[in-house]
Amino acid sequence: KHILVVPGDGIGQEVTVVGKAVLEKIAAKFGHDFTYDEALMGHVAIEATGDPLPAESLEKMRASDAILFGAVGHAKYDNDPTAKVRPEQGLLKMRKELGLFANLRPIKLFDELLGASSIKPEILKGVDILFFRELTGDVYFGKRERIDNGNTAYDTMIYSKYEVERIARKAFDAAMTRGKKLMSVDKANVLESSRLWREVVLEVAKDYPEVELEHQFIDAAAMLLIKDPKRFDVVVTGNIFGDILTDEASQIAGSMGMLASASVGESTGVYEPIHGSGHDIAGKGVANPMASVLSAALLLDISFGLKEESEAVISAIDSVLKAGYRTRDIADATTPANMILGTDAIG
Amino acid sequence: KHILVVPGDGIGQEVTVVGKAVLEKIAAKFGHDFTYDEALMGHVAIEATGDPLPAESLEKMRASDAILFGAVGHAKYDNDPTAKVRPEQGLLKMRKELGLFANLRPIKLFDELLGASSIKPEILKGVDILFFRELTGDVYFGKRERIDNGNTAYDTMIYSKYEVERIARKAFDAAMTRGKKLMSVDKANVLESSRLWREVVLEVAKDYPEVELEHQFIDAAAMLLIKDPKRFDVVVTGNIFGDILTDEASQIAGSMGMLASASVGESTGVYEPIHGSGHDIAGKGVANPMASVLSAALLLDISFGLKEESEAVISAIDSVLKAGYRTRDIADATTPANMILGTDAIG
Ligand SMILES: CC(C)[C@H](C(=O)O)[C@@H](O)C(=O)O
Ligand SMILES: CC(C)[C@H](C(=O)O)[C@@H](O)C(=O)O
Repeated sequence: KHILVVPGDGIGQEVTVVGKAVLEKIAAKFGHDFTYDEALMGHVAIEATGDPLPAESLEKMRASDAILFGAVGHAKYDNDPTAKVRPEQGLLKMRKELGLFANLRPIKLFDELLGASSIKPEILKGVDILFFRELTGDVYFGKRERIDNGNTAYDTMIYSKYEVERIARKAFDAAMTRGKKLMSVDKANVLESSRLWREVVLEVAKDYPEVELEHQFIDAAAMLLIKDPKRFDVVVTGNIFGDILTDEASQIAGSMGMLASASVGESTGVYEPIHGSGHDIAGKGVANPMASVLSAALLLDISFGLKEESEAVISAIDSVLKAGYRTRDIADATTPANMILGTDAIG
Repeated sequence: KHILVVPGDGIGQEVTVVGKAVLEKIAAKFGHDFTYDEALMGHVAIEATGDPLPAESLEKMRASDAILFGAVGHAKYDNDPTAKVRPEQGLLKMRKELGLFANLRPIKLFDELLGASSIKPEILKGVDILFFRELTGDVYFGKRERIDNGNTAYDTMIYSKYEVERIARKAFDAAMTRGKKLMSVDKANVLESSRLWREVVLEVAKDYPEVELEHQFIDAAAMLLIKDPKRFDVVVTGNIFGDILTDEASQIAGSMGMLASASVGESTGVYEPIHGSGHDIAGKGVANPMASVLSAALLLDISFGLKEESEAVISAIDSVLKAGYRTRDIADATTPANMILGTDAIG
């Protein structure tokens, strides 16, 4: 099995080192033969080649069995809305080129971190959500341009029935293996693309008579997620609404630093933390690498079908937390200073 | 002063009765002469006339000094994505026709309700946020259609510099009267309309050197709002991001039933709860009317400049809460059954 590591920018560089080290340990322990390569994407790729996703990186991606990815993004571009070449273009192109239409984001809480969230522990206890975010359509990939001499800008929020159907089926399939409950999130009271979304979901639902389907508008869903997260089981939604809801949901897990995601579709899968490049803490060695380690666990499970190995990684994280070790983002007033570790130590 | 009451659908019918009763009491107490009229909008207007915003209603709106509005929406349309005439079209048309480009949503917590939220009290104490949501642009009003024989649907997310500038100025002005901090929320790492948004906000900022400006991406903002709501003071954002963020923020106040909003712009102002038509509880007399009462308070303050009167309304709500009265949505396990009131009793 051949694994491509794409560290990307900022803390992506730091956390993927740890994610990869865990894959190496697992291979040694369980007697697997994983090979590795590395590729550039994002700001680092722009600096080196002028292109946020160089052709060489894309070739390496296509040739891999799975990709362990960090993050892309750099403050430089955020403060310059006119920059033509941007790190995120590399990420979006990768998603499109590799056909990664389904982004799975599990939200599960380690018991030890029940207190780390800003939400009350009694609201959180037992929460177990699996998001399916559509990843290659919507306003991320519709036509966009400046018109009217640069005085007006637009983006196009667009979905075809085919795109909605394939992500909906994945979500319904997952619902069948879990609590048989699915929530579809849209804004069908205003948007035509959401009305098409809802139509298709209602149609696909006919093939899953056992699944209890609920529709929520994105505004109500953003509210309910905080009010009553236990009401959520499997959730399916579009690209931009999924981007927002899953970041919001990260607060349930105490920190974005604890959440991994899997992007799958037509061939190779990409595994990455849901946190971004974290410019503010990059290079300080304080980033929480657990999301990258959990990404490695998802990789072992989903791309390689290695369930036992995947569970070994998760229980390793569990032991580290049970032993009281914390990174800064999940430490609290009661954590002794000597238990607060940096990126390397956790690895 | 002439006030138009537009109850709309579902619990809008119930709560505006209470909001209006409060305006009448204030008029009597402070010696004002308010006149009232009523108009149809939403599902009730479709049933009566076939049109979600009949010309007669729009005329009455234009002729009013302020509008006390309830909510629109009906489950019937939510389950039928193909319906051509929909209640929400009335609301969107009203916003556009009256030029209501600025939607103000204050998020403030009554001390008595600190425990009612799913968020920890220590995270909430002292939170005081004022959202400026742009209300007449964005994907709400861009072109939308079905193409490709109905198999594809799109909506257009669109902003002009003029539209961004006028809402940005309102937000900067408000920041000057408060903590001199402004957060602008967009998705400039992906969207062209967001890059235009950010460009204009940066430009307007030059006229407000004292205001500390911060940019956040919508996904990060949705996360931060739960993690650290005290970090927010004045927030300015587009129509769809504002829709999502402010509903999410309602959990800070314990319930959507406690939050009012003001929509202002070119002439008359519209005051409404941020909750919707609440089909599930409509007609049962259990809705929380306080958001409509607080809408009346905003109306007195913003449209009529009656600060003392507005504060009298807010302290009346405060007394009711201090006395221990609750509606179902803000009651908890410790609330005695005889203190849990219905819509009428609170009025
Ligand atoms: C970096 C950005 C383009 C990206 C997105 O919006 O998809 C990120 O927020 C994510 O969720 O993976
Ligand atoms: C009813 C709906 C169209 C409306 C909106 O999305 O603007 C509502 O959610 C609101 O926030 O006022």
